[in-house]
Amino acid sequence: MADAYEGAFMPPSLRALTAALARLPGIGPKTAQRLALHLLQHDRESAAALGHALQQSLQGLQPCQRCNNFSEQPICSACEDPGRDGRLLCVVETPADLLVMEQTRSFRGRYFVLKGRLSPLDGMGPKQIGLPELLERSLDPELEELIIATNFTPEGEATAHAIETVLAAQERSPALRITRLARGVPLGGELEYVDLGTIAQAFRDRRGMT
Amino acid sequence: MADAYEGAFMPPSLRALTAALARLPGIGPKTAQRLALHLLQHDRESAAALGHALQQSLQGLQPCQRCNNFSEQPICSACEDPGRDGRLLCVVETPADLLVMEQTRSFRGRYFVLKGRLSPLDGMGPKQIGLPELLERSLDPELEELIIATNFTPEGEATAHAIETVLAAQERSPALRITRLARGVPLGGELEYVDLGTIAQAFRDRRGMT
Repeated sequence: MADAYEGAFMPPSLRALTAALARLPGIGPKTAQRLALHLLQHDRESAAALGHALQQSLQGLQPCQRCNNFSEQPICSACEDPGRDGRLLCVVETPADLLVMEQTRSFRGRYFVLKGRLSPLDGMGPKQIGLPELLERSLDPELEELIIATNFTPEGEATAHAIETVLAAQERSPALRITRLARGVPLGGELEYVDLGTIAQAFRDRRGMT
Repeated sequence: MADAYEGAFMPPSLRALTAALARLPGIGPKTAQRLALHLLQHDRESAAALGHALQQSLQGLQPCQRCNNFSEQPICSACEDPGRDGRLLCVVETPADLLVMEQTRSFRGRYFVLKGRLSPLDGMGPKQIGLPELLERSLDPELEELIIATNFTPEGEATAHAIETVLAAQERSPALRITRLARGVPLGGELEYVDLGTIAQAFRDRRGMT
């Protein structure tokens, strides 16, 4: 692509647009060029809409002071929604995880969004991912259960463990239960094809049938 | 994705950004959401750069009055470059095709970019794709050869045929040759796996070996 970038046929602003698109994750230089030309040639309206939306989002969105999810107000509307159950707090790694949880329609409590997962090599320690804020949040006297819904990856598990540890170390309401999403065989899972670690876990966590 | 869009957890500006990204070709709602969250969470700098580049491109780029390629000036720098051979004019369907041609480094003439290919069902007739402008351009007394480099698709072939027809119908310098890129077996092509139409064409267009 160096040729195309250097060519006299690629004006600087087109080159800049291609480079900016290529910075998006999963978009290479070839796709970026295709997108840039498409936007300018066939869909200037979408290009204007995207430019406007980017500007609005950058200016308007901030972390909610209570849950850390993106919000246009200091406290997001979900945190202030009296219809949500304030006794339950679900801790997720990212806003994307929160949106997935919501789509299951199986949780009506509140959320706390970490700023990522523990990953010391990337400089993500307990402070960077927002554990102090979570600790403060856990002091809410209304709270009865804190559900850790980090990913079931090594980093997610380490994060869950760290949350458990810091919560255990501080004084808190004895009524506060700390729980973790269940691990086990996924829906539709055939045992023959499920990985052994998952089956072992499902054995250990087996539950009584009522 | 409707749930995510409707949820209280998706502020309007984040929803607008996701929708704007989903308008890009090849980007579905799920990827758009992932991109939006990534930009806002991890790469606000890229988001700002993209917003800026979109604005600059929309304001700054216009079709060059001679070649129709994107340009920041009324006449693009390539059209004014004395190092290009003004006797040769290569006609392509899109700016992307022009960039590919340039990358081959096998052409040092000038270009004319159509506004697309003939496609009557989509409302793309001779006027819409810019044939009148091409006709005018073909009157340039300096011009000796006009190379039609539209795609070898049905629409591209129809476009090439239309260009030939309108050029033949008008008075023009008798010295002006109209040519078309060669069709044939691609580089590295094994006859066994090349489609029959291509082989038939390569037979018809066979050339003497020197």
